[in-house]
Amino acid sequence: MMWLGSGAAASSTDEYRDNGMDPAIKRELEKIVGKNRLTDSPEALVAYSYDAYTEEHLPEAVLFPVTTEEVSAIMKVAHRQKIPVTPRGAGTNLAGETIPVRGGIVLCMTTMDKIVSVDPGNLIAIVQPGVINLDLQKEAEKLGMMYPPDPASWAVATIGGNVATNAGGPRTLKYGVTKDYLLGLTVVLANGDVLHTGSRTLKNSSGYNFTALFCGSEGTLGIITEIIVRLIPKPRASRTLRVDFNRLEDCSDAVSAVMASGIIPAALELMNQFAVQAVETHFGLGLPTDIEGLLLIQVDGHDATLDAEVKQIDEIVRSKKARNIVVANNAAEAERLWTIRRAAGPALVRMRPNKVTEDVTVPVASLTAMIKKVVEACERYRLPVGVLAHAGDGNLHPCVMFDKRDPDEHARVEAAFDDMVKEALALGGTLSGEHGIGLSKSRFMPLEFDAVAMKLMKGVKDYFDPLGILNPGKFV
Amino acid sequence: MMWLGSGAAASSTDEYRDNGMDPAIKRELEKIVGKNRLTDSPEALVAYSYDAYTEEHLPEAVLFPVTTEEVSAIMKVAHRQKIPVTPRGAGTNLAGETIPVRGGIVLCMTTMDKIVSVDPGNLIAIVQPGVINLDLQKEAEKLGMMYPPDPASWAVATIGGNVATNAGGPRTLKYGVTKDYLLGLTVVLANGDVLHTGSRTLKNSSGYNFTALFCGSEGTLGIITEIIVRLIPKPRASRTLRVDFNRLEDCSDAVSAVMASGIIPAALELMNQFAVQAVETHFGLGLPTDIEGLLLIQVDGHDATLDAEVKQIDEIVRSKKARNIVVANNAAEAERLWTIRRAAGPALVRMRPNKVTEDVTVPVASLTAMIKKVVEACERYRLPVGVLAHAGDGNLHPCVMFDKRDPDEHARVEAAFDDMVKEALALGGTLSGEHGIGLSKSRFMPLEFDAVAMKLMKGVKDYFDPLGILNPGKFV
Repeated sequence: MMWLGSGAAASSTDEYRDNGMDPAIKRELEKIVGKNRLTDSPEALVAYSYDAYTEEHLPEAVLFPVTTEEVSAIMKVAHRQKIPVTPRGAGTNLAGETIPVRGGIVLCMTTMDKIVSVDPGNLIAIVQPGVINLDLQKEAEKLGMMYPPDPASWAVATIGGNVATNAGGPRTLKYGVTKDYLLGLTVVLANGDVLHTGSRTLKNSSGYNFTALFCGSEGTLGIITEIIVRLIPKPRASRTLRVDFNRLEDCSDAVSAVMASGIIPAALELMNQFAVQAVETHFGLGLPTDIEGLLLIQVDGHDATLDAEVKQIDEIVRSKKARNIVVANNAAEAERLWTIRRAAGPALVRMRPNKVTEDVTVPVASLTAMIKKVVEACERYRLPVGVLAHAGDGNLHPCVMFDKRDPDEHARVEAAFDDMVKEALALGGTLSGEHGIGLSKSRFMPLEFDAVAMKLMKGVKDYFDPLGILNPGKFV
Repeated sequence: MMWLGSGAAASSTDEYRDNGMDPAIKRELEKIVGKNRLTDSPEALVAYSYDAYTEEHLPEAVLFPVTTEEVSAIMKVAHRQKIPVTPRGAGTNLAGETIPVRGGIVLCMTTMDKIVSVDPGNLIAIVQPGVINLDLQKEAEKLGMMYPPDPASWAVATIGGNVATNAGGPRTLKYGVTKDYLLGLTVVLANGDVLHTGSRTLKNSSGYNFTALFCGSEGTLGIITEIIVRLIPKPRASRTLRVDFNRLEDCSDAVSAVMASGIIPAALELMNQFAVQAVETHFGLGLPTDIEGLLLIQVDGHDATLDAEVKQIDEIVRSKKARNIVVANNAAEAERLWTIRRAAGPALVRMRPNKVTEDVTVPVASLTAMIKKVVEACERYRLPVGVLAHAGDGNLHPCVMFDKRDPDEHARVEAAFDDMVKEALALGGTLSGEHGIGLSKSRFMPLEFDAVAMKLMKGVKDYFDPLGILNPGKFV
């Protein structure tokens, strides 16, 4: 693990650098986690100064705790010394939630990576926050179970990060987001107190639902150190379809038609022409590059049902002028179809030095209208936009590629996103469907939330974290 | 509506009685809601002094608001005068949440009963809190949609009350509880401010999830005046089975076996011999009274799937020594089977003057163990117990019938419930699965929640309601 290298560097001398944080404090923290789980080496501080968003800020020390007790002891020191603490997982978050904009400590939770238990009899799993989403998926699958939340970054993203941002994914459409599978948490509060929320039961109406309050709070209310999630039986079978459309509007109309048909697909993903072309350019999957829209549709459940559902979907998309329909005949073919969607991000990011991914979400019936607005906004500001969308639940991910070093281009990106956000809110939408607010959208919060709501969020934040040391400088 | 009669009585004179609340204040409140939507008539105060729990306390006035603005104006007066305000819906809640133990105002929300919109295109509905659950069900059904939460009291219970207690029901097992279908709220805060939470989108990761915090908060944080819920397409078909068991243990083992089979039934309800006998005695449905356990199992979804699932369930329950299996051949037969479950409450309540319904919930795999503990506890204290359980999610409803006027018997009931609660917590369970805490379980809170959690709940309550006027004297 790269941080060990950094740790070793730091441990090669007893001296910590006075880079804003008193070396004596670093030594006190070192006593808690041990020498090679605290580092202030320049390369480590750089490594933990950024995430998948476009900004960066150096912390003064990076710590890698392995127990709730260590996190509690760290928070007691931070609280006493008023040191900012920014928790992070794999750093795949897209809204800048984990950038330590006030310096201080980065608490890297990837070293708390134990799957405590996977318990099919109780339909639950208990994990530490550093467990990688896909690792939990695999363990659950061995026992015939599934953990539905499946963010695109699941191969590296941590469950703790998923909880902090209330992460979703394609399967969200049928199965719900992270909050829908969260049963309980262990959380270290700002003062070091350890809070237990929820239970191992599938239902719980006892007291205030703090479990849900921490979900999506982006590390601003406490440090999550253990997570109880609900599992479901793995669907017996699934079918995947790729549908090509000459016109984007037909493509998004087809989404609304499928959603109104009574079928709930496991996933219903949309890509626009630019995204398809990017994938084709960089990965050559043999996609037609003249189509304006592409849908990937997956249905899952009982074999007996799926053929009927595929037939119904086939009829619906044809009625919306689908140009071509590819149905995967086996798991390998389905996997190949999903490669198209997974390749989109990597393909787009290669086009320019920087990429920003929007996350605006609108009521499903407004999908076509919102996609139009996104395309218009990017045309207005002369920007290339790859539209990826969890279309079935109205969650759009317009990806804009640019070069930050060009101030004019950067300004146009900001302006385009301003317009997209305002259009989404005008359509009854929300700033974020699954990526969170972080740094990237703090400035938009007053557009979605009035003074009463903003004051209440601030008040709750102040109660949980009176000194403002938990992930300061973010949305609240 | 009976309150209109009472209102008329009150309006027959300009004088309000000085029953603890200054008549001048009542006249000020009357200016907000109008003469016939405020009453302090003795019969009205008695009518709103109790709910489906066993205690009662008189309020000083009952108000029937019809708009968010009225509720806001009422709260401004209550806040200025430090008057306790206890919101209520139909009063079907079982834990005493709506008993105005500190007097003051009962805010009866049943007059805010408009279904604002049912919108299949966006898979949502918007309702006022006084809308009756079953009325929303019917409107949704007309458009091919379903609102899954289905508490036994759904024919009278209000959606607002469902939200305040995070209500469940049999379908919870497959579809989730109220919080899982809640997208947004309009809430009047203690000081009269109006808060809007969530959105009309199916996904939302913007800011703190206050929507979830209010769900299950039992009127202690604010007054809910509008509710946005998620709808799902109505399942195309369903099958219902009744399964009889000679031994209760085989019956509960069969539940665990079904839950481990990969099938998620829409409902999986258990009744013990005493409950079956009560139903038979009072309604004569032709049930065998010598069986120790009865299961009602419903599966729903696509026709093609259901026959296979029924066959699989049939094999599982036979392997658990099922004595008899009845499969409904049509909707009418299914309805007749569900009558057994719906008749259980009414049948049990007729046996003695008082009935208390427990709501302990345990991890699913501990169902058999918990049922044993319940039966043992009631034998220990010589009490008859009808066990009804949403067995599939480990949510038990032991119903104990007694006579409150007999202090010894009442004391034995309390003692038995103490034991049940402690056993449930020892099994990793929780105080409440779907009924809430209210008055009935406040004293148990410190058994489930440690000092850190209790302090945090109190702190959040104090922040939302610094004067403690919102439903005072309850769990927090």
